[in-house]
Formats: sequence, structure tokens, C-alpha cells
Amino acid sequence: MPSASAHVIAVDLGGTQFRVALFDAAGRLLRREAFPTHGEQGPAAVLDRIAAGCRDMLTQLPAGGSLAGVGVAAPSPIDPKRGVVFQAPNLPGWVDIPLRDELARRLDLPVLAGNDANLAALGEWRFGAGRDHGDLVYLTISTGVGSGFVSAGRLLVGHSGLAGEAGHMVLQLDGPLCSCGKHGCFEALASGTAIHREAVRRAPLAPDSALGRRDPLTAAAVDEEAERGDPLARELMEAAGRATGAGVASLVHIFDPDIVVIGGGVSRSGPLWWDAVQRSAREHVLLAYLPGLRIVPAGLGDDAGLFGAAAAVLNPAAAGA
Amino acid sequence: MPSASAHVIAVDLGGTQFRVALFDAAGRLLRREAFPTHGEQGPAAVLDRIAAGCRDMLTQLPAGGSLAGVGVAAPSPIDPKRGVVFQAPNLPGWVDIPLRDELARRLDLPVLAGNDANLAALGEWRFGAGRDHGDLVYLTISTGVGSGFVSAGRLLVGHSGLAGEAGHMVLQLDGPLCSCGKHGCFEALASGTAIHREAVRRAPLAPDSALGRRDPLTAAAVDEEAERGDPLARELMEAAGRATGAGVASLVHIFDPDIVVIGGGVSRSGPLWWDAVQRSAREHVLLAYLPGLRIVPAGLGDDAGLFGAAAAVLNPAAAGA
Repeated sequence: MPSASAHVIAVDLGGTQFRVALFDAAGRLLRREAFPTHGEQGPAAVLDRIAAGCRDMLTQLPAGGSLAGVGVAAPSPIDPKRGVVFQAPNLPGWVDIPLRDELARRLDLPVLAGNDANLAALGEWRFGAGRDHGDLVYLTISTGVGSGFVSAGRLLVGHSGLAGEAGHMVLQLDGPLCSCGKHGCFEALASGTAIHREAVRRAPLAPDSALGRRDPLTAAAVDEEAERGDPLARELMEAAGRATGAGVASLVHIFDPDIVVIGGGVSRSGPLWWDAVQRSAREHVLLAYLPGLRIVPAGLGDDAGLFGAAAAVLNPAAAGA
Repeated sequence: MPSASAHVIAVDLGGTQFRVALFDAAGRLLRREAFPTHGEQGPAAVLDRIAAGCRDMLTQLPAGGSLAGVGVAAPSPIDPKRGVVFQAPNLPGWVDIPLRDELARRLDLPVLAGNDANLAALGEWRFGAGRDHGDLVYLTISTGVGSGFVSAGRLLVGHSGLAGEAGHMVLQLDGPLCSCGKHGCFEALASGTAIHREAVRRAPLAPDSALGRRDPLTAAAVDEEAERGDPLARELMEAAGRATGAGVASLVHIFDPDIVVIGGGVSRSGPLWWDAVQRSAREHVLLAYLPGLRIVPAGLGDDAGLFGAAAAVLNPAAAGA
């Protein structure tokens, strides 16, 4: 167990940049830095750069402060027992990389590693919108749909660290093609990619819609036009919100959470999308779940992974480690 | 904690009968009796009858044996902290009934109560087809679709005891009507009720099919005709199996289990249905899950709830109590 006064370093590794942050034992973010990942240089070089970033951060420790360890959120499933990255689609060459041990060796410090969406769930549960709740369902809806689940105060990691991929649960048998090659996934109906795909397909057929004049035609642009009242844009945001609400309902039936937290770029959409999510979730759950159903925006924004990595070091048992 | 040599009484409460069983501390079923529930007499009378059944069973304790407690599997969600039945659709008047405390008072023994499908999952995990696995997904497919989940050796009960209702996750947005009043639930596509519904709808349109001559036209009859080669029956069993496999895939993405166990009446179907389940699950999961995917029939049959109730008393922490 870390000592009560020990600090923690958290790392959030992404395809274009990684961030390093210093937290105190109460989970206060004291300092944060971002560095380019340079993934094209391969895993060893990236690990060296992360280690250098952590050593820099160590120099920021308050006088007399000690360090409990380093937590890393990685954009890949992580073997929970061995701390090994299976395969990170956004990091060239990252297949079966022993992230935890390689970083621990470079830093001579205890390291704990986990999947970024799972750790973001832990972060929101410990320090964000899910604070003071025992059972949390977390969704991050952006290009894809990621998720993480805290049940009775413990993060689900699964047998091989692959738990929490709700983006690929089936929501529409034989539905639209997903980026994963399968059909009808939650992600294929609710993600920013899905909103963009439908906008590109439908805009040419609706010459009166403002969508045809938006360049680039992003999901955020569709949301803007929806909030301004464009009928096609409204239809697309409502469909995405309805799919999101149905996915939330499925997860509520499975987990019976006391709170559902939604983050990611699409969650910054306006009230039209949020209303569709709330309405659809209530339409799709059994009556017994209605009184306790709370669906709220994430509280930590892009920092959820960093907070989660810190939370994992501060409380390894809750992180499933 | 129960002493290592203590016995356990397990009760499985159903709408038409309840069963009482005596287990030793190793989970061996020593004796089992069934009694009519007489639910029409109301909760107090049913509780009296259960208490009498338990007292009868107590007389069967081996000389010098002690009793750790009584476990009860109930056909309803149970508040995990208070042992209260929310509402049992098959038991008249069972709304907000403090099952645990009412039975404990009648017997002057420690009582633990849980939902029957959840406890069946625990039973299969501890004593059945999921023995020696840490993370288990359990489905029971009969008139409805029930489920239970063991993650890292602990049963999921949720915030209010409502976890494990995967039968009502959405598998087909705007799909067929479910018994719950919503559309496109897993149960509306994969249950025996769904197979029966489609058989009744389709048989009159297929005069060559043997299904039109089956009376009663049950899901089991459809399975028999499918195994004999009837084309319509094959189509219906394959569709139900495909929906089941898609539901399994969704749960595999969420939980990353090391085993998926399927029980219930429909799971006694022939190889045609099982092949469709296995094929569809593999079609619908991401590649990373394929190497470890194991989907097997339940090992305890109708006794899973009894074994689970015993397992809960022997190991309350694993039962989420």
C-alpha cells in the first residue's frame, strides 16, 4: 500500500501525444505536461520518452515528498496480470509489449498499467461525476465508443483485460457496418463516425439542409446545425442519441448502476442529443430501473484517463490489479 | 464465517413449487424435497410453508452436524443490502416482502436471499460448468432469458439487486415486441417464447412444413422438427441461435469472461441450435476474444439455483452479500 502522503505520477499514452501528470495522495492534480509520442520511432523509443517525462516530473515533487508509483493509461487492452499491451492500433509496433515491466525497469519505480477507457471510468468514479457512487457505467463517445464499469467499488478488467468494449455490443442485428468489420455495433450507430457517415450519405439527398454547405462535415458540425434547427441534422443527432440511450439501457439492465456517466467528444453535443439519450434510455429500460436512473455528463473531460491512472496507483484493489 | 464442517439448507422458490435441499460444507447435495408453493395463499403463508420445509430438512442433519445458514433463490430481484423481494411476477402479493428477515425470524437461523438467475450463475461458477473459472457469463434461456455474471470471483448484484437482466438488453432496435412491452430485447429474439411466436406466425404460410401438424406447437417441437430437417423449423432455430450468439458476443465484449455457460429449456436443443449459437458468437466478437472463447452447456440443470443458494451461504463475499 502507498503511504498516505505519497504522490503519484500518471501517464496517458495516446497515438499523437502522451501526457504526464503529478497528483498528491488526495488525487489533486498538481502539474501536467504533454509530449509528442513519435510512435513511428517504435515501442522502445516511446518507452524511453515516457520514462524521461516521468523523471522530469519527479523533479517537481515537493521537498520531502515520496512517490507511491506510476500509473499508465494505454490505448489498448492490457493483460491485467502481466501489464502487457496486446495490440495498440494507434501505436505502430505495439504488439505484446510488456509496458508495465519495461517502464518499471527504466524508472526503478512500481508501475501499474491499464486500458485508457477502463481507467477513465475509475477516474470518474473516484474523482469525477461518479464520486460517492458504488456502481458506475462509463461511456466515452467520440470517434469510437469506449466504456468502463465499476461494480461494488471495483473496476471490471475481465479475464484477459479485454472487459469494457461495450462499443462492440450488438444493438442492431445486421445493422450498419462498423469500423471493426462487423455489423450493427453500438459504435456503428452512436459514435461521431456514425453521425459523420450518415451526414455524408444523406446531405446530397437534402439540398435544403445546411449540412451540404458545411466543410468539413464533422459530427460537431451536425450537432451545431441540429441546435440551429436544421431538420436533417436534427434527425441525425436524434438517431445517434436514441441509439446511445438504447445502449445505456442495455448496460443498466446488466449492471444496475447508481450512475451512468457519458464523456467523449459527442457528449459535448447540445440539449437535442442529450434529450434523445435520456428519453431513449427511459423508453428502453424496465420500470424497476426508472426511479434510480441517473445519466450525467463526465466531470473530468480529457483528464479522466490521468485521474484514473492516479486512482489505480492510490487504490490498486479497486483497479482490479 | 460458517465453520468448515457446517451444512447448508438451500431453497429454490418458484411460482408452482419450492424445493428445499441439504448440502454439506463441500457443496454435496445430500437430500432434496419439493413442495407446492400455493402462492394464492399469500406471502405469509408461503413463508410459513418454506420455514416448515426447512425445519423438516433440519431433522436430516447428520448426528453432530451444525448448520451455517439458509440460502434462498427467489424469482425476483432482491435488494442486496436488506434481503427484500421487490416484486415477484409469479407470486401473488409479493411486493416489498422482507424475505430474508421474515424467514430468519421464523427459523432463528441466518438467512441469505438472492435472485434465482444470479444465484444459478454462482452455482454454475462454484459447482457446475464454470468450476475453476474466475469470470463467468451465465445465460438461462427458456420462456424468458435470464442471466448472471461472476467477475473476478464475485457475483454482480448491482446497486439495488437488479443486475443481470441481460434478457432485456436491446439486440434489435425497433425489433419484435417483448413480453416486457419494449421492442427488440434479447429475450424477444432468442427465448422459447420467441421461437413459439415465430412458429405460430410462420407455420400457416408454409403448408409443407411439419410445424403445422404439431400440437402443441412448442419451442421444443420446433427444435425436434429442425433436427429432422424441416426447412421452416431449421430457419427458426437458426434465427434463435444466431440471436443468442449475438447476445453472447455483446456480453463477451462487456465482461471478457473465460467461460460462457448456457442453461434453461432452449439450451437442451439439438446441434443445429448450438452450432448457430457458436457460429454467431464467433461472427460477432472482435478477433482478440476468439482464442479464449468457450461457450458450454450448463452442468447443474434445474438444480443450479439450489447449488447457488448453497454457494452463497458458504461464501457470502462471492455472492456480493
